[in-house]
Order: sequence, then structure tokens, then C-alpha cells
Amino acid sequence: MILIKIGGSLLYNSKTLLKKLKDFAINYNKKIVIVPGGGIFADVVREVDKNLRLSPSLSHKLAIKSMDFVGEIYSELGNIKSYSTLFDLKREIPNEKIGIILPSKILLSIDLAEHSWNITSDSLSLYIGKLLNVKDIIIATNVDGIYKNNNLLKEVNASEIDEWTSVDIAFPKLLKKFKMNAYIVNGKYPERVIDIINNKNTICTKVIGWQNISV
Amino acid sequence: MILIKIGGSLLYNSKTLLKKLKDFAINYNKKIVIVPGGGIFADVVREVDKNLRLSPSLSHKLAIKSMDFVGEIYSELGNIKSYSTLFDLKREIPNEKIGIILPSKILLSIDLAEHSWNITSDSLSLYIGKLLNVKDIIIATNVDGIYKNNNLLKEVNASEIDEWTSVDIAFPKLLKKFKMNAYIVNGKYPERVIDIINNKNTICTKVIGWQNISV
Repeated sequence: MILIKIGGSLLYNSKTLLKKLKDFAINYNKKIVIVPGGGIFADVVREVDKNLRLSPSLSHKLAIKSMDFVGEIYSELGNIKSYSTLFDLKREIPNEKIGIILPSKILLSIDLAEHSWNITSDSLSLYIGKLLNVKDIIIATNVDGIYKNNNLLKEVNASEIDEWTSVDIAFPKLLKKFKMNAYIVNGKYPERVIDIINNKNTICTKVIGWQNISV
Repeated sequence: MILIKIGGSLLYNSKTLLKKLKDFAINYNKKIVIVPGGGIFADVVREVDKNLRLSPSLSHKLAIKSMDFVGEIYSELGNIKSYSTLFDLKREIPNEKIGIILPSKILLSIDLAEHSWNITSDSLSLYIGKLLNVKDIIIATNVDGIYKNNNLLKEVNASEIDEWTSVDIAFPKLLKKFKMNAYIVNGKYPERVIDIINNKNTICTKVIGWQNISV
């Protein structure tokens, strides 16, 4: 099972990616699960929070529900079924090959994440990854990967990341805690995302949260 | 039972209104039910719809879910319990005196409204009013009422309204269909809203959808 978080920043550039992923999943018999970001809906929650000083829990809840909004839109744009429980997802993915998670029911039910803006859809997608027992996650965003001194990093250890441009604050720690690796990739270039799935070299940053060192 | 729709346009000016309504309901033993508008969250849905040409059904669904967001925020700001079913609302309102409806579960379950932007939270609040069997609805918004040639109308028959400034296109017809009357009032002045509840003369526009004419 391949887990891809598609950031809300890609909302207006997601249609081609979604369609290519669907074609790829069906044609190559892969199972692809998409977690949406919160995008402009979460941005509005953040703006309202700044103006009205909402409780961290309410901001967290509404930001998570924003992911459902983007998920519903991705579902329509890509003609891909959406699921609000992992039960339904797992039952249908062998036939459907690709599915979109509307994560609010899952995430609010288990309530494992910190209620703060340190946690955004990047980290929340790791919780979903943990539940699905995947080892890798692809984070499709609107930049080419992670930069250090204006250089795109090909690979970086999660521990070495102190300044984050393209993922949230809690992400590196969670990646290590969950023993996962992440690929940060520009979703405007669907072929790069598909290259990662095919283990091909491409433009992206691999963030290493766990290495299986066998000497 | 007094039904008040508090428009999302009042989001940043709603706290005083919510607190005064709560005090009023408790102190005068009234039952007040609040329906939230979709505000800036629905505005973002509209923007995305313009950009991506969503299906009318998806726009409708997300606009309704936006009302839940505003309802959750009103709930926190006013320290008022929120309800996603009329069953729970009716069970608790005798003790709570005031409640906020998170309307998406109700409205999507019954799916009676047209899926179009002619229907916004104004009209949707009439559907809630019909379900609750109320005869009057107060629409608290950010203007003083309905204007004609720059004059604030004290009273207007729903049939006479052709240009709408402060309520949606479907509203007048639904008001007549449901045999209801509406008071359009500026929610920035909570005393006006309370005057309406007390049958006192105040600055607002009464929209007549039904008159009990006994000769």
C-alpha cells in the first residue's frame, strides 16, 4: 500500500496528479491511499484563530475537518472514492486500487495528536500511516523538496532538520517515532511522484526517520 | 422556541450577541435555538467552486459543512452547547435554554433543499425552522435590514421582494411556502434582537411570508 499525502497547496494543481495516480494504480495493480491536506480551509481556521483566539482543541478539530473538505474536492476532481473509516477503505481498496481518506472521523476518534498548530496535515498523515502500518510516505507539496542554503537536499536525516520550510514542526520527531521514511516531492510534476513509487531516481527529498542497518 | 440564524458575517462580532442571548434565555426562561451561517468558510467554498467548477452538489455539501464550522466557533465563543441532531437539541433545550445547531447532519440526511448557490444558510435555516415547527425566524446579519431606494423597510411582503441585499434568492419563496415570517436585524446590536423576541418595536425589517387574516 502506497500512502501519499497531497497538500492542500496543490488544490488548484491537483487534477492531473489525481488522474495519473488513478490510472497508474489501476494499470499497474498498485494500491494507493491519499490523505488530503487542509489547504485554504485550514488557512481560514488559522486566520479565525488569530482573530478570535480559539482554544487549541477547536482549532485542531476544525483544521482536521478542513482536510475532509479538500478530500471531498480531490475525490470529485480525480473521480476517486473517499472513505471516512479505515474499515471501509481496506474493504474496498483491493477492488478500487485507489482511495482518498476523509480523515476527521478517524483522527478525532483516536485523538492521539497534540492539539496545536505544530501538528498540521503533514504530521496527521503520519498517524494515518502508522494505523495503516506503512513504512514510507510520499508528501506531495508545491515545492521540489527540502532546501538547505538554497540547495535541494537529496536525502536528510529527520534528526538533522531544524528549519522546516515544507513540513510542520512535529513531523521529524513523529517520523522517527513511527520508524518511517518520507519523500517530499513537488506534486505539480506527477511523474516525480510515480518515479518514487517505482523506486526510480527523481527530484525530491528523502527524509530518513528510520534505517534498517544490517551489518 | 425562538429560532435565530446568526450569519457568518457576524463571526468577529458575535461574542456579545451570543452571551447576551444566553443570559436572556436563562434569566427569562426562554428557549433559543441558533442556526449558524457559513461565513468565510462558505466564501472559500464559493471561491474554490469558481476556480475548479465543482458540482453543485459538492458545493452545496461543503457550504452546509461550513455552517458547522461557524456553529462550533459560536459554541465556544458563547459557551453554548451545540447539537448535530434535533433529537439531542429537543432533549436538552428545556434544561439548557439555549443551543446551537450544527446543521450538516440534519440537512444532508433529509436533503430537501436545491443544490445551488440560490440556497444559502438563510434558506437552510428556514428548513430547520420548518422541522422545528416555528412560525417566526430572526435573521441576525451585519446590516440593519432590507433597504429599498436607500430606505430601510420596516415591513415587506415576501412576494414584493425582487432585489435582495441581505438574504438569498430562494428565501422569499420558501418563507411563503413554509408560512413563516422573518425579522432581518443587525446582530451587532444585540438589544435589537432581544427587542424582537420581546415583541418590542426596533430597527429591523419584518418579512411577511404568511398572514393570519381573520375578518
